[in-house]
Amino acid sequence: MCLRQHLRCSSLKVTIFGAGSFGSAISCVVGYNTERTLIFNSEVKLWLYDEQLESGEYLADVINRDHVNVKYLPDFKLPNNVRAVTDLKEACEDCNLMIFVIPSQFIRSVASQIRKLDIDFSRAVRAVSLTKGFLVENGHPFLISKIIEEELGIDCCVLSGANVASGLAAKEFGEATLACSDYDDAYIWQYLFDTPWFKIDCVPDVICTELFGGLKNIIALLVGMIQGLGCGTNTVAAVMRLGVLEMILYGSIFFNIRSSIMTRVFFESCGIADLVTTCLGGRNVRGGKAFTLSNGQKPWEEIEAEVTGGQHLAGLVTLKEINETLEVLLIEKSIDVDKHFPLFRSCFKIAYTGTPPRSLIDILGRNELRELRFVPSGLLSLIDDSPNHGEVMQRSSSRQVGSLILSKTQSCMQYE
Amino acid sequence: MCLRQHLRCSSLKVTIFGAGSFGSAISCVVGYNTERTLIFNSEVKLWLYDEQLESGEYLADVINRDHVNVKYLPDFKLPNNVRAVTDLKEACEDCNLMIFVIPSQFIRSVASQIRKLDIDFSRAVRAVSLTKGFLVENGHPFLISKIIEEELGIDCCVLSGANVASGLAAKEFGEATLACSDYDDAYIWQYLFDTPWFKIDCVPDVICTELFGGLKNIIALLVGMIQGLGCGTNTVAAVMRLGVLEMILYGSIFFNIRSSIMTRVFFESCGIADLVTTCLGGRNVRGGKAFTLSNGQKPWEEIEAEVTGGQHLAGLVTLKEINETLEVLLIEKSIDVDKHFPLFRSCFKIAYTGTPPRSLIDILGRNELRELRFVPSGLLSLIDDSPNHGEVMQRSSSRQVGSLILSKTQSCMQYE
Repeated sequence: MCLRQHLRCSSLKVTIFGAGSFGSAISCVVGYNTERTLIFNSEVKLWLYDEQLESGEYLADVINRDHVNVKYLPDFKLPNNVRAVTDLKEACEDCNLMIFVIPSQFIRSVASQIRKLDIDFSRAVRAVSLTKGFLVENGHPFLISKIIEEELGIDCCVLSGANVASGLAAKEFGEATLACSDYDDAYIWQYLFDTPWFKIDCVPDVICTELFGGLKNIIALLVGMIQGLGCGTNTVAAVMRLGVLEMILYGSIFFNIRSSIMTRVFFESCGIADLVTTCLGGRNVRGGKAFTLSNGQKPWEEIEAEVTGGQHLAGLVTLKEINETLEVLLIEKSIDVDKHFPLFRSCFKIAYTGTPPRSLIDILGRNELRELRFVPSGLLSLIDDSPNHGEVMQRSSSRQVGSLILSKTQSCMQYE
Repeated sequence: MCLRQHLRCSSLKVTIFGAGSFGSAISCVVGYNTERTLIFNSEVKLWLYDEQLESGEYLADVINRDHVNVKYLPDFKLPNNVRAVTDLKEACEDCNLMIFVIPSQFIRSVASQIRKLDIDFSRAVRAVSLTKGFLVENGHPFLISKIIEEELGIDCCVLSGANVASGLAAKEFGEATLACSDYDDAYIWQYLFDTPWFKIDCVPDVICTELFGGLKNIIALLVGMIQGLGCGTNTVAAVMRLGVLEMILYGSIFFNIRSSIMTRVFFESCGIADLVTTCLGGRNVRGGKAFTLSNGQKPWEEIEAEVTGGQHLAGLVTLKEINETLEVLLIEKSIDVDKHFPLFRSCFKIAYTGTPPRSLIDILGRNELRELRFVPSGLLSLIDDSPNHGEVMQRSSSRQVGSLILSKTQSCMQYE
C-alpha cells in the first residue's frame, strides 16, 4: 500500500532501530518533526538491545526516565516523545517508517528476526538505512539497503551525509542526502528528517549514495596512513582525490553504475561532504596514522583499543571486505586490480600483509607520465562513459617529440 | 611556430617570471627536469623585481651565489641551473616557455612591459600561468591566462593544483592539473613539470581549471568564518559542498561553460584536491575565523597583519572582485544573485557591510524544503545540462500529501 493511501486513514508511525550515538542523534531530529506535523504519529519508538549499566540500571529505563542516552550520547537530551523499547515485536507492529541505524554486521540478523515475527508488511511500511558499509557474501558486495529489502520484502531507501552525531544532536547546521527511487516516498522521508538545522536533499540514486558512505572510510584510513608517513596537505589532497576515482570505478565495476551518475551524486552531501568530514580527523584517520607512525608494527587490536575503545575501525572492516571482492575480480575476470585500484590495494597490503607503509608513496609516484586526457569534445575521458569513451587521443602525433626526449645521463632515465 | 618544429633545431629555453615562494618552489621542479632532458635547455631563468635585503645584499645576488631564496623560500636549495635575472629583456629574449607566477594584480603591468620590449613572439613561444585569481575590469571577470594571451599574442595555458610551495620544494608527493587546449603543447609542458614526486595530468579545459583555482579561496574564507562561529565539521563540509555548487554556477553564467564539464574537471587536482588543501587551514581559513571570532569587529587590515604579515588575503581580494561581477549581473540581467549565490553574497556582506556573522547560519538553514531532484533518467538536474535539464518533476503528485502536512501548533509552522 502506498504511504499516501495510508495517510487518508491515519498518521504514520516511526521506529528507529539502534540506539547508538547516531541512532540517538537522529531521534532528536525525528522526534522534533513528529511532534510538529500531523502526518506522523508523535511517538517515536527507539528500539535497542537492552544493556545493564555500571550503575545497575538498564539503559532503556534510564532513557525513558531521563530522556538521555547516558551510554552513547550522554551530553544531549532526547525529545520527550522518543520512547525506548526493547521488544522487537513491539518495535515493529503498527510501524510504518522503519529507520535502521544498526552496525552493518548485525543487520542481517536483526532483519531476519523481524521477518520471523510474521508481521504483515503488505500495509504501508517502508524502511530507510542509515548504516554505512557492506556485507560481503561469497566474494560479492551486498548493500545494506538491499539486505533489508530482501529480508523484509519492503522498499528500503538510504540516508547518508556529512553527519557527525554530536553535531547533529547539538543542532549545528548539517545536510544529508536521502536516496529513494520512489518520488512520493522520498517526499515523506524528507518531511520526516528535514529541520531548519538539518537539510535534506532527495535524489533517486540509492546505490551510489550508499556506496560513497561505505567506501569513504577506506580513504580516511589512507589519509591517516599518509599523515603518519609525515606527508603534508599536498599529498593528503592527492590521496583523497585518487581515492574518489577508485570509489567511482568500484561502483561502475561491481554495481554497474554509470560513472557519470556517480560523479553527479558525488556533489551531494553523501559524496564530497561526507568524505571531507570523515577525513578531517575521525577515528579512521587517527587509526591509519597510528599504524604508519609505528611503521606497521603496532597490532591493529592495540590501535583500535586506543582509538575506538576496542570496537573495530569501520575503514578496516570495509577494507577487508573490499579486498575480498577485488580478489574475486582478479581470479574470475583476470582484471589487474593492482593497477586499477592502486590505493585500495596498497592500503590492504600495508594493513594486513606486512608491506612497508612507505610503499604507499612509491605507488603514488609511479614513474610513468600520465595519459593526456584529450577527447575531441573537450570532455575528460577518465570519468566519462558517453559514446566518446575510449577516444583518448593516442600519443601518435607526439611520437616525433617523444623520440627527442632523451635523458642527459644514463642514470636518470626519463619516463619513456 | 609549433614547439615541435623548433625542437628540430634546438632545445627549448625556460624562464620563470616571479620568485615568490611558489615561483621558487616550481623552479626546483623545472630545474630538475631541464637538467635531465635534452628537449630543454639546462639553464632556467628566474626573473624577479630585485629587492635589497636587511643585510644590505640584493636578493638576486644571494640566489645566484647561495642558490637559496632567503626571503621567500629560505629552507630549500634551488637547483644550480636556476639563475636569477632582474632584467626583463634578458628574461624574455630567446625564451620559449614562459612560466608566470606573479601575483594577479601585477600581471597586466608585467605582461604589458614585456609587450613593449618588442620581442619577436612569432617564433616558438608559449606561456603558462600559475597565478590564481581574476582581474575584474568594467564589472566583468577576466582570467589571467587570457590577459597574458591578449598582451603577448601567444597561447597561455594553466597549471593549478593542490600545491603548497613548501611541500613541493620538500619533494613531498603532489599532483597538478595542466590545462592546455593544444595537444602537442600539453605534452611538452607535462615533460617540463612532471617528476616522480609531482605528477601532472593534462586536460583541455583551461577556463574551468583556472576558475576553480581562483574561486576556491572564497570557500576557504567561508570555512574559516563558520569555524569562528563555533560550528563543527558537519557545517564545514556543508559549506564546502554548497560553495562548490556556486563555483560551478559562476563558471556557467560568466564563462558559459557547460556545468557537466565543470563537474568533470572538479575531479582533477585543480578541483577537489586544491579545495581540500586550501580549506585544511591555510591563510584564508585563519583570516575568516579570526574575523567571525571578533564578531566582525576586527578590521581586516589587523587580521591580514596577523595572518599574512600584511599582504592582502587572496580570498578577500577575490571576494570583492566576484561581488562586483555579481552586482553587475543583478543590475544588467536582473538575476537574483542573493538567491543563486547565497554563500558568496553573504560572505561579502559579512566581510564588508557589517552584516552579523551569525547570518551565515540563517542562510544555510533557510526554512523551505529543498527541491526533490528527480528526473526520469535518474540523473540529478541541478548540475546537469543535458537535454533533460529543467525536467525536475514538479511536486504535483504530492500536493495531496502536502495538504495533509499541517502543523500541530500555530507557532511551529511547517515549511509549506
